[in-house]
Amino acid sequence: MNRYPYDEKALEKEYPLAARCARPEGSIIAVGDVRIGPGTLTLIAGPCAVESREQLFTTAAAVKAAGAAILRGGTYKPRTSPYAFAGLGEEGLRLLAEAGREFHIPVVSEITSAELLPLFDGIDMLQVGARNMQNYALLQALGRQKKPVLLKRGLAATYEEWMASAEYILREGNPNVVLCERGIRSYQSGTRGTLDLAAVPVMQSLTHLPVLVDPSHAAGVSEWVSALGRAAVAAGADGLMVEVHPEPGRALSDGQQALLPEEFAQLAEDARRIAGR
Amino acid sequence: MNRYPYDEKALEKEYPLAARCARPEGSIIAVGDVRIGPGTLTLIAGPCAVESREQLFTTAAAVKAAGAAILRGGTYKPRTSPYAFAGLGEEGLRLLAEAGREFHIPVVSEITSAELLPLFDGIDMLQVGARNMQNYALLQALGRQKKPVLLKRGLAATYEEWMASAEYILREGNPNVVLCERGIRSYQSGTRGTLDLAAVPVMQSLTHLPVLVDPSHAAGVSEWVSALGRAAVAAGADGLMVEVHPEPGRALSDGQQALLPEEFAQLAEDARRIAGR
Amino acid sequence: MNRYPYDEKALEKEYPLAARCARPEGSIIAVGDVRIGPGTLTLIAGPCAVESREQLFTTAAAVKAAGAAILRGGTYKPRTSPYAFAGLGEEGLRLLAEAGREFHIPVVSEITSAELLPLFDGIDMLQVGARNMQNYALLQALGRQKKPVLLKRGLAATYEEWMASAEYILREGNPNVVLCERGIRSYQSGTRGTLDLAAVPVMQSLTHLPVLVDPSHAAGVSEWVSALGRAAVAAGADGLMVEVHPEPGRALSDGQQALLPEEFAQLAEDARRIAGR
Amino acid sequence: MNRYPYDEKALEKEYPLAARCARPEGSIIAVGDVRIGPGTLTLIAGPCAVESREQLFTTAAAVKAAGAAILRGGTYKPRTSPYAFAGLGEEGLRLLAEAGREFHIPVVSEITSAELLPLFDGIDMLQVGARNMQNYALLQALGRQKKPVLLKRGLAATYEEWMASAEYILREGNPNVVLCERGIRSYQSGTRGTLDLAAVPVMQSLTHLPVLVDPSHAAGVSEWVSALGRAAVAAGADGLMVEVHPEPGRALSDGQQALLPEEFAQLAEDARRIAGR
Repeated sequence: MNRYPYDEKALEKEYPLAARCARPEGSIIAVGDVRIGPGTLTLIAGPCAVESREQLFTTAAAVKAAGAAILRGGTYKPRTSPYAFAGLGEEGLRLLAEAGREFHIPVVSEITSAELLPLFDGIDMLQVGARNMQNYALLQALGRQKKPVLLKRGLAATYEEWMASAEYILREGNPNVVLCERGIRSYQSGTRGTLDLAAVPVMQSLTHLPVLVDPSHAAGVSEWVSALGRAAVAAGADGLMVEVHPEPGRALSDGQQALLPEEFAQLAEDARRIAGR
Repeated sequence: MNRYPYDEKALEKEYPLAARCARPEGSIIAVGDVRIGPGTLTLIAGPCAVESREQLFTTAAAVKAAGAAILRGGTYKPRTSPYAFAGLGEEGLRLLAEAGREFHIPVVSEITSAELLPLFDGIDMLQVGARNMQNYALLQALGRQKKPVLLKRGLAATYEEWMASAEYILREGNPNVVLCERGIRSYQSGTRGTLDLAAVPVMQSLTHLPVLVDPSHAAGVSEWVSALGRAAVAAGADGLMVEVHPEPGRALSDGQQALLPEEFAQLAEDARRIAGR
Repeated sequence: MNRYPYDEKALEKEYPLAARCARPEGSIIAVGDVRIGPGTLTLIAGPCAVESREQLFTTAAAVKAAGAAILRGGTYKPRTSPYAFAGLGEEGLRLLAEAGREFHIPVVSEITSAELLPLFDGIDMLQVGARNMQNYALLQALGRQKKPVLLKRGLAATYEEWMASAEYILREGNPNVVLCERGIRSYQSGTRGTLDLAAVPVMQSLTHLPVLVDPSHAAGVSEWVSALGRAAVAAGADGLMVEVHPEPGRALSDGQQALLPEEFAQLAEDARRIAGR
Repeated sequence: MNRYPYDEKALEKEYPLAARCARPEGSIIAVGDVRIGPGTLTLIAGPCAVESREQLFTTAAAVKAAGAAILRGGTYKPRTSPYAFAGLGEEGLRLLAEAGREFHIPVVSEITSAELLPLFDGIDMLQVGARNMQNYALLQALGRQKKPVLLKRGLAATYEEWMASAEYILREGNPNVVLCERGIRSYQSGTRGTLDLAAVPVMQSLTHLPVLVDPSHAAGVSEWVSALGRAAVAAGADGLMVEVHPEPGRALSDGQQALLPEEFAQLAEDARRIAGR
């Protein structure tokens, strides 16, 4: 009877760099002074999109005070419609880097094309969004530089496909990959995504890479974000990535899923208690 | 901006008995001396199937010692194949009732047809399995008696369909319904089901009925059961239903997803800590 | 390289009665004078629900004229909500049997519980709906009588589970089973179901049972029903089951997916042309 | 009662260029001398990957003889694993262009990154694969040139998301977009994908763009490809894209889903008969 359903030899052969056996003790990934991996609980928080200096700095101050270790902010936003607000672009990256310096906190932003790499110079961690999880040209380009990469799971990606995408980055020479579950697409339409928390222990057993969880995109409305965030930590996630906005009703994108700073502070406290950290 | 996505008036109209507004404080359902609902954390545990007096009594003693409040055991097992072991039937029900008396613990077993009701006389709680969630003849029959019903979510059921199935029972006069999330079917095949933990806060907001979670069927292998069980409690579940077997390798059904008694004891301890109970 | 992905020995062992090898030439199932199976194209049509003598007889005359070989009509309707119109029950069965005699056409209606069997005496074919595909008590009861059974696929059923449900009926002694694909549940919500037409050739290769397709429930709106019906015939379906209503705007259930009689007549003509019959 | 479920005004507003109302008569897209759109049935065929001059030219001769109007061949193959054969790259493009000239047939190949555009100079149509359907940087780059684009549907894309991706291309100035359904990802794992043929009539009503269907990737094994291809044509598809290999057992990628030339010839004949062309 098989209580562990995977064949470790096969994993080692198919994913020589990403498979657990390549680093049984687990990887610790550095983002500035922050360490993500075994024994840590890393909270990443910030607005869906960088909208203005004031909005970003207000949020940065609040999430840092509440215990966030890394500041997030979208600048080149992939939007389903070509007519939707797609972020401030270069100006957003400047503001984000400035906020990082001002609040002594590393910053992460999504990159959607290898050509944009030079503009991300002041950014500490590069996020690959769900839509680009199998954009191999982008993955390879990120593998040829050294900044840590936050690799979100695609909406219809299997564990193996996700791991293979990480392998694309590792193979080019960049060992600094962090995975992030953010909800898959199922028939269930009561929430924006279906958060697959089995991904946390499964991916932690398949790979040595840290696994974070983004409860905001999974929930789609702020009402359920905190419960999913707590659940993710209880499942063993190495951290959370949460969208926070000081005035969600005025957000230019995804406001309905943003937590208020005080809601995030409560979630951070609960998360630490559950994780015992 | 809508931070709560449901229209409460519409819910009240469509589900006059199950909707939250019918009992805003939440329902407390009695199963023998046990209470399920707000302020409680109920652990249901036991073997997938009752196989023998020895197997059942050994498991019952162990799970009770570890903190289980209700003993589970399948007796009329719906099996995908007509040639698979389908439970001990009437003999299983007798053993289960006897174990309940011996260990002073209420017992729950799945019922698959209204005709079997007389045989379930000594059983404290009647479970409707995922396959029968929309077997309305069965739901109505269970609504016309008073034993509490554990209504599992169907593999492809929406929140609304699940609530409507509860309404079928309530409408016939039985207010004692407890919901149980057990994993839905998605493209993700790395685990047996995809545990949809958003169901916990969502169903608790839509209805006044308690919501339990079965991490065993969702995981499908014991390796991931405990992580999912902890996550369910952190998401706010009113309790867990877990399969436990003293010798999983010898189980006649679903042995690969059964926890050992000592693994269950650890999960129970973690669950209480996370719930703060 | 495997151009046929199934192991025939394993199929024979698991489904000794339903597997193709049990009757390599394919089964021909008789429903009154009608034959369903290889070399035929059977059109089943009629209203979602029997609503009145006039509605039923008008529809029966129209669909028979257009080439329908079997008349359908719901009488005991499983409805998601306990407050929705659930059919005329016994009165509906009487009307349906009368229409069958009047128009010399066999009739089919859905049965939801074994207890109702005596009432279905005048009905030629018994339908098991998607919600009850794994209601084994019902399947076994239908296996112990001889009327042909139309077994719809469950919304989340795999090919193997569907075949196993047919095996439940066959094993009890009734060899007269016809399968019906009606759309599965996927993330895709633009139509009511996702019609899985691969089910036609796959199930025809796995089993010797005829495979029909219901494009009405898959589409959910009449606009797409005919295209899906034509596609099903081109995929090799042994027939179609289509909802037709003379005044869809006045239908008591599922009117938006009913074809007008003239639309059905066109579909029937197209289907015969595509099938070359 | 709504027999057509979409709001045309809303579509016009959200997709001003892609929505049907922008060109009610439907678009005809030219690929070399070939026209794709209303009143046509275009067959695209060829190997999954260009492997050698001999393999490509043998296949090209065979599929052209059987009625293919466009030759396909993968050259930069996105593969789940970074260690899998990823195509011949530039050499493959040269061979494909040469085959196009030799056999007087336009050629199509997948492009995975905007940087590769100059290398695709001799290629008549540029394919965007499922993995890149929301790679907006790529879509925008393809919108800024004039070659026709074959936009495959993502594995988890809704109709609206797919249409929005087409809008990205149109908005940049390239009106030459052809859609291609290739199977979505559902719980159903008996075939590689779940071919959603409702996409054909639905997308043809939502947009003015032609809709092709790729039955090869949906089926995953050659056994079911032809049935799905016939079904697609019966559903109204403007054409098919089919993988053909003279020796599937020796193919370097996806051989198990390739039709033999003679199987393709039969499918082509059936397709023309069903379409009445």
